[in-house]
Amino acid sequence: MSNDALIARLQEQIGKDAVLTDADVLATYSRDMMPLASAGKPVAVVLPSDTEGVQATVRACAEAGVPIVPRGAGSGLSGAANAVDGCVVLVLTKLDKVVEIDAGNRLAVVQPGVVNLDFRSAVEKHGLFYPPDPSSYDWCTIGGNLATNAGGLCCVKYGVTTDSVLGLEVVLADGSLLKTGRRTVKGVAGYDLARLFVGSEGTLGVITQATVALKPLPQAPATLVAGFSTTEAACEVVARAVREGLVPSLLEIMDASSIKAAEAYLKTDLGAGSDCRALLLAQSDSGGEAARRELAVLEQICTDCGADLVYATDDLEEGKMLLQARRVVLTALEMYGVWLTDDLCVPRTRIAELILGCERISEEVGLRIAVVGHAGDGNMHPTIVYQPDDPDEFARARKAFDAILEVVLSLGGTVTGEHGVGKIKREWLEREIGPVGLRVHRQIKQALDPDNLFNPGSMFSLT
Amino acid sequence: MSNDALIARLQEQIGKDAVLTDADVLATYSRDMMPLASAGKPVAVVLPSDTEGVQATVRACAEAGVPIVPRGAGSGLSGAANAVDGCVVLVLTKLDKVVEIDAGNRLAVVQPGVVNLDFRSAVEKHGLFYPPDPSSYDWCTIGGNLATNAGGLCCVKYGVTTDSVLGLEVVLADGSLLKTGRRTVKGVAGYDLARLFVGSEGTLGVITQATVALKPLPQAPATLVAGFSTTEAACEVVARAVREGLVPSLLEIMDASSIKAAEAYLKTDLGAGSDCRALLLAQSDSGGEAARRELAVLEQICTDCGADLVYATDDLEEGKMLLQARRVVLTALEMYGVWLTDDLCVPRTRIAELILGCERISEEVGLRIAVVGHAGDGNMHPTIVYQPDDPDEFARARKAFDAILEVVLSLGGTVTGEHGVGKIKREWLEREIGPVGLRVHRQIKQALDPDNLFNPGSMFSLT
Repeated sequence: MSNDALIARLQEQIGKDAVLTDADVLATYSRDMMPLASAGKPVAVVLPSDTEGVQATVRACAEAGVPIVPRGAGSGLSGAANAVDGCVVLVLTKLDKVVEIDAGNRLAVVQPGVVNLDFRSAVEKHGLFYPPDPSSYDWCTIGGNLATNAGGLCCVKYGVTTDSVLGLEVVLADGSLLKTGRRTVKGVAGYDLARLFVGSEGTLGVITQATVALKPLPQAPATLVAGFSTTEAACEVVARAVREGLVPSLLEIMDASSIKAAEAYLKTDLGAGSDCRALLLAQSDSGGEAARRELAVLEQICTDCGADLVYATDDLEEGKMLLQARRVVLTALEMYGVWLTDDLCVPRTRIAELILGCERISEEVGLRIAVVGHAGDGNMHPTIVYQPDDPDEFARARKAFDAILEVVLSLGGTVTGEHGVGKIKREWLEREIGPVGLRVHRQIKQALDPDNLFNPGSMFSLT
Repeated sequence: MSNDALIARLQEQIGKDAVLTDADVLATYSRDMMPLASAGKPVAVVLPSDTEGVQATVRACAEAGVPIVPRGAGSGLSGAANAVDGCVVLVLTKLDKVVEIDAGNRLAVVQPGVVNLDFRSAVEKHGLFYPPDPSSYDWCTIGGNLATNAGGLCCVKYGVTTDSVLGLEVVLADGSLLKTGRRTVKGVAGYDLARLFVGSEGTLGVITQATVALKPLPQAPATLVAGFSTTEAACEVVARAVREGLVPSLLEIMDASSIKAAEAYLKTDLGAGSDCRALLLAQSDSGGEAARRELAVLEQICTDCGADLVYATDDLEEGKMLLQARRVVLTALEMYGVWLTDDLCVPRTRIAELILGCERISEEVGLRIAVVGHAGDGNMHPTIVYQPDDPDEFARARKAFDAILEVVLSLGGTVTGEHGVGKIKREWLEREIGPVGLRVHRQIKQALDPDNLFNPGSMFSLT
């Protein structure tokens, strides 16, 4: 089948408006938010509005031998949703229904195109809580969250996307629809296929529906902020909090470079003094006395570790204000250039080594690197600032990006904590999982997608 | 390679004492605790004491074309560990080391032969908690728990085995060692292979080591017991507790038949009166005021739903005594015959329909059926009592077993909540997952174990 014939068939089967071929439109849908990854030119962008439309697209592309790159909102940070030359970009944003909210069983059925925030708001009306909250929660979609196994700030207490998934519907490479998983809390009937598809970055099939477990809506959080004159002291607090059995609902860290950027952007000092090298931000949503007790224990640990400032409040608005410093960091860094954020996870006892490693790399490459991260999980986001129009700076940014991952592996960490492998960390995945791991990945890919239809070249290559 | 040559090679490579061929010994290792499943005759039982021994066994069997049935303590309830004719039973109980407990990162590394209780005790010394607690926790092994994705009483709050798994080492069908997963809390580098192997019932590889996440040790639990004159009222409490956002650390149900058996065995009445049709047992381990508040809310729900008795205590010993009624049910049923316990999971709003269905089936087949279960998860264990020496009763027991699963599927449930498919629910798995699901299972099995070396005929057949 020629490309023209493929486009004609798709237009016929799922509607003219759902098949886009305008060059500008194609470009718009050709990449996600990761500047390091290259993007190819698709032959068409297809926006089906139901599962049958997805099946029709997959069948037509399979027949034409045209690869498919599935895509949500495009908020990804690994290039996983970047087009490859000659592909169809399959956009899932029109499968945008919250199909069902079952408060009696604390679950919901949702289509992939629903925006994370919209879904959270919908279940909240039933007193329920969908935990995964990636930073892009106000525009990323559930489908992308599933494909990347997205995390967020509250994972430290509530887990990542896969921990909420009960069941999936997935369109396979031959266009058939797999319904896997269940609506019950427990279940061991067969392999855990749902969790195989979660985090598979669109390489095994197209998720068209998910059944997810919901939590009771937590209490309004109490908030604590603490400043430290050394990185090691702040990280020692994290390690002790883990050891002493604390489970905060948020535990974030900002390094000296992040603090400086946030202070400059907010035109205020964060109250931690000029020699503040690290800031910890924590919340407890256990409610009332329990939250106060949790934060009191954390406060004591901060003091014991030599914090220069510790402040706790159960005022919601004040808590939001304190968190603002963490939330503005990426925007603040744009004062200095374009940012390139890395994503990795280290054992929680080794966060200080990672941050100090980033400081060293920053000096070596001569670029600003700000480290913010989900300290309670060890999931860090060193963010490199560079001038995009300077090829030398771009090269040094890339060098720093890789050097950080080198440090991560030496600390027993993983090269991606929540953003994914995509098209930028394939070699790093190979290094992390080794030849046997890579072989098993290829075997599974070949078993489910023998013609390499789905997102070819993402995550790993077949040869 | 002949069987004799295989045995000679195994004896040479992993030691004479580790390769058993005595007929009585072979019989001992030929079946688990599920009476419905048949068992074949192995050619040898092999007990390696390290990963290299497992690899040598797998390589030798692969070369000889002799299937391998991996096995832990044999506490399973699905026949998954039952021998097939001409197989090698690969017993993992001698890989029995707790390799590492890392309190700073709240994780442990453990071999498959460690008994669940021993592992729980080992981590408890570090103030840590390994949640999965199947009823056989004092003799089942971690390897079996991983292979079946075992649950237990505390899953309602803490999840099942897979929720604790960070990483695995697995010997594959060619004898190579796959190291998958990680030591960090989060990580999305590649497919979630660890969770594919968890619950795969020994059909994809042999797990030789696991890295598991641990929780802080919970507080001593407070306990509540409530009696109801109708099944519906007790089950309405469960549904309302879910809807109101309660997360008890234990929420068990006993039906009328279980209550009667426990009362007769313990030679006491459980204080719920002669017209008591259902008993709920709940615990909260949130500690102090929080636990009291949780149980007070539950108590109010019980009262609102018409409980005839509600009693709460934060005395630990009294709590244990109250739970005894639940714990003795299977032993108590042995007063009447041999028990055959089923395992299934239904949405938590539909537990009453399941119990009433079991009552109807009990009348139809003329056998006692007692239902106990993890009500907070909807994971029920209808237990059929029969005389093993009466072929007609055995046939009726089997009929009841299947009739219950029929009800389960009609309620939107799953045919196994925590015991697994094994050799007794293959047809039921097929019904539950459908032809597309079955095809994907076969594709994955063929990709990882092309010669059907591992546990052939368990879970599903290849044709």
